[in-house]
Order: sequence, then structure tokens, then C-alpha cells
Amino acid sequence: MKITAVIMAGGRGERFWPKSRNNFPKQFLSLTSDGETMIQKTVSRLLPLVAYEDIFIVTNENYVSVVKEQLPKLPIENILAEPMAKNTAPCIGFAAMVINKKYDDAIMLVLPADHLIKYEDMYIDTLKQAIKVAEEGKNLVTIGITPSYPETGYGYIKFAKHKDDQSVGVYEVDKFVEKPDLETANKYLASRKYLWNSGMFVWKISSIMDNFNKFLPEMDEGLQNIKDAVGTDKFDEVLYDSFDSFNSDSIDFAIMEKADDIFTIPGSFGWDDVGSWLALERINQTDENGNYISGDVVSIGTERSIVSGGKRLIAMVGVEDIIVVDTDDAILICSKDNTQDVKKVIENLRICNRRELI
Amino acid sequence: MKITAVIMAGGRGERFWPKSRNNFPKQFLSLTSDGETMIQKTVSRLLPLVAYEDIFIVTNENYVSVVKEQLPKLPIENILAEPMAKNTAPCIGFAAMVINKKYDDAIMLVLPADHLIKYEDMYIDTLKQAIKVAEEGKNLVTIGITPSYPETGYGYIKFAKHKDDQSVGVYEVDKFVEKPDLETANKYLASRKYLWNSGMFVWKISSIMDNFNKFLPEMDEGLQNIKDAVGTDKFDEVLYDSFDSFNSDSIDFAIMEKADDIFTIPGSFGWDDVGSWLALERINQTDENGNYISGDVVSIGTERSIVSGGKRLIAMVGVEDIIVVDTDDAILICSKDNTQDVKKVIENLRICNRRELI
Repeated sequence: MKITAVIMAGGRGERFWPKSRNNFPKQFLSLTSDGETMIQKTVSRLLPLVAYEDIFIVTNENYVSVVKEQLPKLPIENILAEPMAKNTAPCIGFAAMVINKKYDDAIMLVLPADHLIKYEDMYIDTLKQAIKVAEEGKNLVTIGITPSYPETGYGYIKFAKHKDDQSVGVYEVDKFVEKPDLETANKYLASRKYLWNSGMFVWKISSIMDNFNKFLPEMDEGLQNIKDAVGTDKFDEVLYDSFDSFNSDSIDFAIMEKADDIFTIPGSFGWDDVGSWLALERINQTDENGNYISGDVVSIGTERSIVSGGKRLIAMVGVEDIIVVDTDDAILICSKDNTQDVKKVIENLRICNRRELI
Repeated sequence: MKITAVIMAGGRGERFWPKSRNNFPKQFLSLTSDGETMIQKTVSRLLPLVAYEDIFIVTNENYVSVVKEQLPKLPIENILAEPMAKNTAPCIGFAAMVINKKYDDAIMLVLPADHLIKYEDMYIDTLKQAIKVAEEGKNLVTIGITPSYPETGYGYIKFAKHKDDQSVGVYEVDKFVEKPDLETANKYLASRKYLWNSGMFVWKISSIMDNFNKFLPEMDEGLQNIKDAVGTDKFDEVLYDSFDSFNSDSIDFAIMEKADDIFTIPGSFGWDDVGSWLALERINQTDENGNYISGDVVSIGTERSIVSGGKRLIAMVGVEDIIVVDTDDAILICSKDNTQDVKKVIENLRICNRRELI
């Protein structure tokens, strides 16, 4: 069966301010020393499995030109521009309709544009295994991540017994659970029955459409209209009206938590969701003082700090556990314990109507 | 007797990098919220006692245009440009010669350009008292500062008995001592027999010239040549040759520590030598979180920090006891405990031959 991939690239990524902005979010940033951007990496690691012509990017209208620029080999018609952000269910439904029109049924990998994978071969192997499971019947497959510490920023998947046909490494999903507090996260870790929810899914177009029809019948109607309009003059108008009518439903809440035949495959391929500037010291090499430094930096007696420079010299003297991110019009200086508060800066800028900085 | 003032403004002030640069040192910076620069403040607080035409600025040739710009009311001929930096003795001797030629004998106040004074009336009163003592005989008067804590960054003056004519508040100097370690500084403070050496002096031209003649006879010869050349075509050449021949002697080492008739007057007029960026929280009002912030800054959960902004937004999130100084081409992020290490940044830039940043 034809294998297609849908890369969700509509996110705004406020946690990477000031380098990420409303018109240039995280997925278009390069956060590793090789200079490749997140979305470029997401595409290139898929290429052993999916051809360019079968990779679809769903993104915001405003980002279409950045996607074109960063992915010049991608067919332009594979860039699917959402007229407005309506969470993951409409995003995935829209992409499913385009693929459905092109190929009728097909395997659909759903992948975020802004995660990193360390062991790409193992990642491809896991996807292949997921494809195999998805091809059997109506199965929806989600890639779980074997937790390495009690993270409170992710949702978890409680897995149950092995899939009945004894496929090695495939588990039935018992339930999805929300981001836990630290105590609960510790329990999850100790129980060895929970995986991190990575937001990566594998299914047949026909399987996910059955579930839209069952759990989101109104949205399904709009999606059918979109499908009918693909390739016609009315496409933009129908797309806009349909999205306008959609509720902001997440695929997790609206379908995954309700559907039957949900399986998970635990991945151990060095996944990182790169959730904040703290990720830079995980995903890059640090120096002998525990610093990760990129850009023009003079560092004197500085330890365990993260610097993402801009055009100017940054002199760091005697500081510890500090994150510094420099851009032309704004600089962030943040304690490593307070990366979640970067969004408070953005709130402040919004209140003060300083949109040029957001 | 005519009262003249000599303001020493040749210093480089590396401790205020990156706002201070080789071509724009500390005395030309504004470090207070009123926007006046250090040298402007130094001149304006003198005006109740000394007229513009009797205020002389000794500075480096490179700073003449900045002095003109910042002190437009100062007669241009009162800007004395040293052809090279040769410490304080040649600087003071040069100024003494210019004043000697203009007024024969006169009172000469010698004052650094980059200190702050909180109580200006008390400062003027102290200078008046010093002038009175200087007018009597050959006396050299130095203004001491009543210490408020065991500072290890200043030299100290050990004072002895009252001046024999029982002038109130005037003491004979027992000796000058070098910057002490903390233990010694604590002893000095406990003994109540030591004052901080502020580097402010008061004497008659004739008195200081006698001492040049006695303790620095070679320099005295060069200074006489300079005096003879004032107002002639040969001035620049003679000045250069004389300075070239001078040793780099400080007035403290070469004269004050050896001369007789040295008196000190303890000043308690809120003196601050503004020795590093730490001074900003002493000399300015801090906010309810103990921060001193100037410029375009969004501060979230930040405490006891000092920010001197530039043209861009600075977002401070969850940091404590940090100094941030922003300029167009360089930004300093420094722990408050490590301000002395700013000079290591400059050393590094020098080694890397990045003179444009120094």
C-alpha cells in the first residue's frame, strides 16, 4: 500500500522566543549545530521510507513561503495551507482528504515537524512495524516513547497486553492520560506500564476516516466537502468555510481516546520534542564547563549555560545555569529553572501591543 | 587667590565595557537616570566655586572632540590634550604649567572626572576648607573619605594629629597605604585612623611646583620647557618631546608619599568612585525587587539585578544577581560577584585582535 506522510507544521512555538516568532516558529529554526532546520530534518529522516511527492506539509497560510524556501524539493501542491488553526483533528482530516483524492486509500504517517530523533534507522524500523500493524484491519497506531525520567510536560499512554496476533513489540492501548504531576509521573515510571505520547500516528486513510465519521460526524461532512473541492475553483472557499465551521478538536481527545483498535509501538530511537531552550544542551554537545554555546561568545568562568547567539558579541562572565538567546531586536536572559515563564514575556508584549516583537 | 580646577579625564575605564570603549571611556558615559555624563556632573558641581574659564580638562588627544561636545561652555583652550598617557604626575604638572603661565600663582583643585558626589553643598564646603589650608604656606591637601565599609579596592590615608593651628577637621597625614586585603581593611576601619584616598587634591601652583622640583627634578625640567612653549608655534612639539621623556609616575607615589606638609580633610559628602557596573544600584533608585533597570526591559521574576539597556528589548526571566549591559555590537552578561573579570573579556578581545570591540 502506498505510504504517505503528513507533517504537521502549523505550531507557533512560543517557547523558543525570541528566535521563534509568530511568522517564524520553531519548526523553521535550526537548533542543532549542523544548520538544518527542524522541518528539514523531519523530512530528510523520512526519505528512506517516503518519497518527496508523498510527503505533505500541513501548515498555516503565513508559513507557506518559508516551507517552500526550506524544502525546495517538495512539490508545491504538497504544501497544505490551513486557512485558520483549528487543532490537530481538522489538520489531519484535511490532509487525509487530499491524500484520499490522490491515492484513494494509503498508509498515512502523521508526524510533528518540530521533534528530533537521534537514531534514525531505529525510527524507520519502528515506523515500518507500525505500518504493518496499520495495514491489518482498522487499526490506529500511535508511537509511544519509552520514558527515561518522570517528565510532567507530556501526556502518557497506558499500554496493556500484547496485540493478540503476538506481533513483537506491539501493545494494545489501555488509555491515554493527561500530563501528570511529578508524583504521578514517578508512579507511571515505576509501574513500567506507561509510555510518553509522542503525537506520532500511523493508520490507513480508510481507518481514520471511519473514525472521523463515527466520532466527529459534523467535521466528517466538512471534510467530504473539502475532498470534493480539491482541484476545483471552489477549493479555497470550501476550505475556508469548512475550517470556519470546525471545532478546535485534538485528534487525541476526539478520536484516539474513544476509538477501538488502538495500538502502540514503543520507540526507543532517541526522541526529543525539543520543548524549550533547555533542549539545546540535550541535543548538542556541551563543552568541558557544561555550556552549550553557539555564536560569537566570550565565556569567562561560566558554567552549565546555554547561549544561542545572534550577530553581536555576547560576553558571559561568572554566570551559571543561564540561557541567553540573542536576536536583532530582542534578547532573552532566562534562568534554566524558569523556561516556562518565557510565555509570560510574550503575554506582556501582547498586552503592550508590541506585536512586532512576538 | 584665583581658584582653578584641573579635571583628570584621560582614563580608559575598562570596567564599564561594553558601554565604555577605548574611544569613549567611563567619564563620558551617563550612568545616572538624569542623563548627565560623569564629566558633565564633575564640572557642574564645581561651578559654585570655579568659573568655566578656570576649569581645565586634561585628557587624551582622542577624547578632545567628546569633551568639546559634552562641555560646550568650556573654553576650547582649557582642554589640555596629553600626547600620550603617562600617569598622574605628568598630567598634573602639564596643567600646572598652563595655569602658571596664565595666572602665575593660583589655587589648583585636582579632581577625577568620573566620580559621583551625593551632597554637593558639603563637597563645596570641604573644598573651601581645603583651599584655606592650601593657601597657608607650602601645604598639599588631599581630600580623604570617611570609610563606610572595608573596601579593598582603594588606597587608604593614615591620618595623625590635628593640624597644629587647630583648624577644625584638618589632619596631618601620617602615611599613604596601598589597597589592603580584607583583613587589613577591617583593621583600618576598626582603628578609625584611616580614610579612603579619593584622588582629589588641593594646593597652590607654587607649592606643587616646589615639590616637582624637589622629587621629580627631570620632569620639572620638561615641565618648564612646556611652560615656555605655551602659546608658541613649538608647543605641540615641545609637549610631545617632554611627555615622551617623562616616566609614568603617579602623583601619589612620586610626591604625596614623600613630601612634607601633607594634610588631609575627611569628606563625608556621599562620594562614590563608580568603580564597576555594581555602582548602578548604589547611585540609582532600585525597584521593589531590588533591580536597577534602564532601557527597554521586560522583567519576570527577576531580583537584585542591574540592566543597562541599549536599542533592543531585553527580557529577563527568573534571574538573580545578574548584570546585563547591552550595546549595538556587544552585550555583557555578568554575575554581580564577578565584575572584576570584565577585564578578562577585554584581554580576550585584545588577544583575538578584535580592536573594534574594545
